Amino acid sequence: MRTSIATVSLSGSLTEKLTAAARAGFDGVEIFENDLLASPLTPEEIRARTADLGLSIDLYQPMRDIEAVPEEEFARNLWRARHKFELMRRLGADTVLVCSSVSPRAVDDDALAAEQLGRLAGLAEDFGVRVAYEALAWGRHVNTYDHAWSIVEAAGHPALGTCLDSFHILARGSDPKGIEGIPGDKIFFLQLADAPLMAMDVLQWSRHYRCFPGQGGFDLSGLLAHVLRAGYRGPLSLEVFNDVFRQAEAGPTAVDARRSLLVLQEATRPLLREAAGLAAPAAPVVPTGVAFAELVTPDVVPVAEVLGALGFTRTARHRSKPVDLWEQGRARVLVNTGPAARRDGTALAAIGLESPDPAAAARRAESLLAPVLPRRRALEDVPLDAVAAPDGTELFFCASPALPVLPGQVGSPVRPELRDWTDDFEHAEHAEHAEHAERTERTELVGRVGRVGQGSGAGSVTRIDHLALTQPWHQFDEAVLFHHSLLGLSGQESVDVADPYGLHRSRAVTNADGSVRIALGVGPAPTDDGARAQHIALATDDVTDAARRFCAAGGRLLAVPANYYDDLAARYELGDEELATYRELGILYDRDRKGEFRHCYTETVGRVFFELVQRDGGYQGYGARNAPVRLAAQRAAGRAGR
Amino acid sequence: MRTSIATVSLSGSLTEKLTAAARAGFDGVEIFENDLLASPLTPEEIRARTADLGLSIDLYQPMRDIEAVPEEEFARNLWRARHKFELMRRLGADTVLVCSSVSPRAVDDDALAAEQLGRLAGLAEDFGVRVAYEALAWGRHVNTYDHAWSIVEAAGHPALGTCLDSFHILARGSDPKGIEGIPGDKIFFLQLADAPLMAMDVLQWSRHYRCFPGQGGFDLSGLLAHVLRAGYRGPLSLEVFNDVFRQAEAGPTAVDARRSLLVLQEATRPLLREAAGLAAPAAPVVPTGVAFAELVTPDVVPVAEVLGALGFTRTARHRSKPVDLWEQGRARVLVNTGPAARRDGTALAAIGLESPDPAAAARRAESLLAPVLPRRRALEDVPLDAVAAPDGTELFFCASPALPVLPGQVGSPVRPELRDWTDDFEHAEHAEHAEHAERTERTELVGRVGRVGQGSGAGSVTRIDHLALTQPWHQFDEAVLFHHSLLGLSGQESVDVADPYGLHRSRAVTNADGSVRIALGVGPAPTDDGARAQHIALATDDVTDAARRFCAAGGRLLAVPANYYDDLAARYELGDEELATYRELGILYDRDRKGEFRHCYTETVGRVFFELVQRDGGYQGYGARNAPVRLAAQRAAGRAGR
Repeated sequence: MRTSIATVSLSGSLTEKLTAAARAGFDGVEIFENDLLASPLTPEEIRARTADLGLSIDLYQPMRDIEAVPEEEFARNLWRARHKFELMRRLGADTVLVCSSVSPRAVDDDALAAEQLGRLAGLAEDFGVRVAYEALAWGRHVNTYDHAWSIVEAAGHPALGTCLDSFHILARGSDPKGIEGIPGDKIFFLQLADAPLMAMDVLQWSRHYRCFPGQGGFDLSGLLAHVLRAGYRGPLSLEVFNDVFRQAEAGPTAVDARRSLLVLQEATRPLLREAAGLAAPAAPVVPTGVAFAELVTPDVVPVAEVLGALGFTRTARHRSKPVDLWEQGRARVLVNTGPAARRDGTALAAIGLESPDPAAAARRAESLLAPVLPRRRALEDVPLDAVAAPDGTELFFCASPALPVLPGQVGSPVRPELRDWTDDFEHAEHAEHAEHAERTERTELVGRVGRVGQGSGAGSVTRIDHLALTQPWHQFDEAVLFHHSLLGLSGQESVDVADPYGLHRSRAVTNADGSVRIALGVGPAPTDDGARAQHIALATDDVTDAARRFCAAGGRLLAVPANYYDDLAARYELGDEELATYRELGILYDRDRKGEFRHCYTETVGRVFFELVQRDGGYQGYGARNAPVRLAAQRAAGRAGR
Repeated sequence: MRTSIATVSLSGSLTEKLTAAARAGFDGVEIFENDLLASPLTPEEIRARTADLGLSIDLYQPMRDIEAVPEEEFARNLWRARHKFELMRRLGADTVLVCSSVSPRAVDDDALAAEQLGRLAGLAEDFGVRVAYEALAWGRHVNTYDHAWSIVEAAGHPALGTCLDSFHILARGSDPKGIEGIPGDKIFFLQLADAPLMAMDVLQWSRHYRCFPGQGGFDLSGLLAHVLRAGYRGPLSLEVFNDVFRQAEAGPTAVDARRSLLVLQEATRPLLREAAGLAAPAAPVVPTGVAFAELVTPDVVPVAEVLGALGFTRTARHRSKPVDLWEQGRARVLVNTGPAARRDGTALAAIGLESPDPAAAARRAESLLAPVLPRRRALEDVPLDAVAAPDGTELFFCASPALPVLPGQVGSPVRPELRDWTDDFEHAEHAEHAEHAERTERTELVGRVGRVGQGSGAGSVTRIDHLALTQPWHQFDEAVLFHHSLLGLSGQESVDVADPYGLHRSRAVTNADGSVRIALGVGPAPTDDGARAQHIALATDDVTDAARRFCAAGGRLLAVPANYYDDLAARYELGDEELATYRELGILYDRDRKGEFRHCYTETVGRVFFELVQRDGGYQGYGARNAPVRLAAQRAAGRAGR
């Protein structure tokens, strides 16, 4: 089906909005009146610009407070409408949205409303315009879709139909099943918006909290199914505004928007195929594990020191790039000292995801508008499919090893025709002997870290438990939808966490068995983007042992205030010795209905720190109740370090 | 009465919070448990720090999910409470807040709740602690203050009382009159928080939207009166948190907080005097007009060009400072090229307010914690009382002239014993001849603007209509309360206005006859503080004439898109000629129930622009419906100008 977006959904000037919509691949736009009024372009120029961009103008909106008023006022309204119809002729727009009246002068008289809307449609017809009448959820007398339809039906004018808006229907709690009773050709337009489920005034809810389909709590695919069964074949159009999008850049918002429509169409695929023979995106290929996390760093020493102290061993080096592989159990960390590091400092730049079918995963990502990354590689390298997440993190799709890989051993691919990414790496002993003139400086660095590069012996880390990424403030919802729709990861509940300077929001996405867990966070304000922390959480069966080894090897754990442990003592019946150990090492404790969670944090290098976590008895969370203490301790450590 | 504030109300570390509370003059604090847990200070150190700062610890909070549970669980709760009572002994805190349970395991059994709370109080007594039981608005079984009190009463334990929280009481819509039925000595604590009136889930409302008394919509003075009549003599304590304060600096927030309590006490003064013999702030001295607006600028030429084109004449120069007086009708603008300008660029730095009693106005401002500005002046200068508004704008209190002042004429003070601020200025002809070596560079500048310095003859500007100031994002509510409480200006309704990159909020404060109007605005995000626009709106009886004169004198008005006028034509029955004039000049139009508003804007110099406004028939607004078009045009002009 054709896709469309209202200009009010994007920020910037009208020109910027149109360009962003076209670049994201929309077929058309709704022109929001205020955007036109504020534009220096004439209607003819807007028409030409839109056409040049390959966009149609699917709707002009909104026309307000028209119907069910005394005759004298209606005459003035018709006069106003005539001006707008003339404008629409110049603009080349053939459908206008009329919202149900909110005027205190409107009367509760359906017959009058029908009669006046019929006359409006008659005038519209003279200009080649169709009128789409929509019930606002806060309309004075008409505020449900079935009521609006009954008025349209009573008017019986061919140029008068109804416009359905998912927000207005679902926010009122109306049953959308009744939509199937409306003839499809009388549904002139369909606007789609989702919203988080909130108990609040519906006008404020609409104005500040709308979001794209799949980012809120409404059943939009259910609603769309009813609309399609009714026979609607017009565009799927997004009318979404909220306090975040208003400030965000139009380009990424438009991509996020279109992705949400692609995912929505996928959910209603059988019906849509019937309706329009649409090519649906490839099915999701859910990752089966974390192949690696890749750090970039301009200074390998502090990173190597931390990894070494954590028990990692540098096992291999990439054939053609300045990248080392560090391993411990099934946890693999790549350390990249290439050019990106000089730009960004020490950061978590990429995640390798084990995939049963890397090529199919990449195809799906591409079909959902993820930027596919160029393969910058030497001829002999294993081709790796990679895309960029909304926060810029690179996601690599790697062939899944068939078997658990033992420490120090490289895995074999599950499908023999797929080459393993580790084939690009040479074992460290071998690599040490390779001589490349251009590596002199690097070799020197590696020499410096040689002492810690072999790790502290058999560590107790078994694998990567989760990765935590702080998202740009404007793209939190987009990030969740991205990981959900592209990777088939399920979003868990959103949690608010207070740090000394604001509320952080966090939401994890995981696969079914928990072998891939990504915690997406966002800071309190747009300004916090610069200092986005990221972390790699490493699973261990014995966090106390892991923490002790780390400290013995010279690592420093984040100091946790003594008051925290006094509270733990009050809250849980932990043994004195156990508590004393936690207090000594800085281990935090949490418990849920299923099990227990013990965890501690390393100090931060660049933007990155590590967490050691021990999950017992099926604990599913991330220790959110401890996050305020952790955040405050990190703030304090950051201040002390400055 | 003693004033207190919960540490959760302020941002930063516990140490920062305590310091801010002490500096703002609070007598005590409530220690929020999470702040203690996250602090590296021991309870003894916190106790010492608090005492050093002259603060008492009035409350430790909160203890949750204690009562009305099966005996086994209650035993665990008592065990937990014992730990906390020990902690409180170390801390030197003698009252603990217990919130009504939200646990799914709590049962609806008042007798059990009373029995268990009585036992808790018995344990508390052993530690010298009192238990204050509070009904959370979202408590599972106990969620109204009268219900909580009935349980406390039934328990009948001397160490058990109730805690009243204005938010929980008023958000539930409970009638606070019943508070008078509670014995004063059984009200152990009073927490005060206001909130904007919103129809939303009460937990979200509480978590994200609480504000200080006088900044929301609740009748807090009414509630306080009931509490005082009940005989409560404990501290007035603020427990306020919202998404803004969490990010704001603790220092200004604490001052804003304490000011709100002073104003609240003033509102209940008769009762309070009876209760505690408190010194109430001096009564507000409402300003009777705008004496002047003062611009600072590092480059006088563009400012002088705009003022000249607007019809202003440079009439006088300050005796001892590099400040010129420009006049037209009763509108006076000071142009200051002193040191501040080199720092801040061209900005609206100060407002002179005509006051019937400048000294009393300053005393009141000081009693409400406004920073009193030092008088940097030469010996012979007229002493001017001035304070700083939250956004840094200096407010000068000037002796009101008795009579309207004619163009070019300096006014005489209404009270003969008060000297007129204009006495510091020498008439321009006289000033031109003064010779000061240090003014050479300046004189040169003035020479360059001499051509426009005499204005375009008899202009049509009559006075300053209003001043528009953009506030720092974190201080919008504070600014409204500041102007209301210090100056006795009334806050008008808050309006949201969309610009291409976000929602702006705006709220005007005015005196009764509208001769002082200040529009306080705030941009969409904390990051917008850097580019805060300000403007001076000048009243005229004929905006078309004023605009024409301005253009004829070489001024440039903000270009308004043609589409705006097509919409005006559809919306109002304006004459073709009138519309053509507006379209030509860039005049905007609005209408309310009372009258009409016509206005236009100059281009921006530094952070400042001017508006010409014509109010007819008692129009009371500021043309908010035109603001999106104006903001978009300014964005476009800014881009073009870069």
